[in-house]
Amino acid sequence: MDFTSQSSTDGILERNFTISDISGILWSADPATAGTAIAPLVLMGHPGGLHKRAEGVMARAAHLVSTQGFHVASIDAPGHGDRTRSAEDVEWVDKLMRARAAGEPVGPIISAFNGSIAERSVPEWQQTLDALGELADIDANAPVGFMGMTLASEIGMRLAAVEPRIGAAVLGASFASPDTLRAARQVTVPVQYLLPWDDGDIDREAGLALFDALGSEQKFLHATVGQHHSVPWVETEDAARFFARFLRPFVRNVT
Amino acid sequence: MDFTSQSSTDGILERNFTISDISGILWSADPATAGTAIAPLVLMGHPGGLHKRAEGVMARAAHLVSTQGFHVASIDAPGHGDRTRSAEDVEWVDKLMRARAAGEPVGPIISAFNGSIAERSVPEWQQTLDALGELADIDANAPVGFMGMTLASEIGMRLAAVEPRIGAAVLGASFASPDTLRAARQVTVPVQYLLPWDDGDIDREAGLALFDALGSEQKFLHATVGQHHSVPWVETEDAARFFARFLRPFVRNVT
Repeated sequence: MDFTSQSSTDGILERNFTISDISGILWSADPATAGTAIAPLVLMGHPGGLHKRAEGVMARAAHLVSTQGFHVASIDAPGHGDRTRSAEDVEWVDKLMRARAAGEPVGPIISAFNGSIAERSVPEWQQTLDALGELADIDANAPVGFMGMTLASEIGMRLAAVEPRIGAAVLGASFASPDTLRAARQVTVPVQYLLPWDDGDIDREAGLALFDALGSEQKFLHATVGQHHSVPWVETEDAARFFARFLRPFVRNVT
Repeated sequence: MDFTSQSSTDGILERNFTISDISGILWSADPATAGTAIAPLVLMGHPGGLHKRAEGVMARAAHLVSTQGFHVASIDAPGHGDRTRSAEDVEWVDKLMRARAAGEPVGPIISAFNGSIAERSVPEWQQTLDALGELADIDANAPVGFMGMTLASEIGMRLAAVEPRIGAAVLGASFASPDTLRAARQVTVPVQYLLPWDDGDIDREAGLALFDALGSEQKFLHATVGQHHSVPWVETEDAARFFARFLRPFVRNVT
């Protein structure tokens, strides 16, 4: 793991890193102003077509860092942001563009594309977790959070299904393919699931079925008025509190 | 309106009142410790078979008073608590008991009974609002909140449909009779709707249909794991924040 650059704004330290061909950012409370604390980590995914430094990702990360003191890590999904698009991904995108141009339904294509990206993302997040777990200010024994909607929710669902370090997740607006449903049944950690009630891309019943499939004893469905991408900010505030409930007991101040 | 008794515990002032044959309680931040402030009012209903001073009602009221400084009013529904049960209500309860003893479905009976109580409750809450609006420490110009599940949700839905003083409501676990659905369509204020995901008494689809029917531009569905009456405490904390978003701008400190 290499830290390639760092900067600090408004009390938030931003460290860019690479782990083999994974490009990522770690945001933390700046020890220069906040003092050093060992705090839990939240992984944050980005929607399809965006990247690790997308505006929404940064705003949510800043909120988690500044209100709860969490570390937040964001990485580019395969073929996104700073990463080269593979021949396979170029083909997926072409297929999507052709369907859109022809006015054909794009849902099944996006769902399958997301599934393919999610499969490849899981080992990358695990590699990222291995590397970040070595840092002195991240408590390697604390549960890790995962937060992300749409594509990132597909990724988080599969990651939470297989990775025991994930201890709580805020997900939402996933397609509900058989693979996603299978992953959901294997998730046992607390999940807050955000469902845009008027999602034009994903059938409401499919979203409810996915929430129902979650194997978690503690799961919370938050449905809000609006389309696929229009989740109100109050859900970010509530996500911070959700992670505080399930990760916060593990914060240890350095004495 | 007559205040019949008052007491103060842990910084919360409890005033018992009667308005003709309505028996109620008003909880407020005790001016002796908190100072006098003009604050919004939240009306709190109780589930069927319980009363204005039920344990859950008191715990939720105390939370709203102590975290947000709201006034909280609770009244006995017709035939509940300190109030005489009418011949009509005696008949309803007998019918319910007979069905339960015979192992017949009680849902339709409770739904109709709740509807009957709700119809009679609306003018009583309006009378209560008139009376409480005269108190100097309640801002008569501020929107009023309503909070309650099951029977109280039936009442709140109908009250919010017709009473312009209601500005936000936390409801949930209502039956979805045609009358309830009709009321829901007329509600336009922000609503947080709590839906027990494994409600053995109310069909999940009926609960979702009721949320869908709400005419509010801002509505928030919170579904949680558990039965009809088992809503986790975090929803009370979130209800306090919900009312703070929609009523709090109207708090005026007395200078």
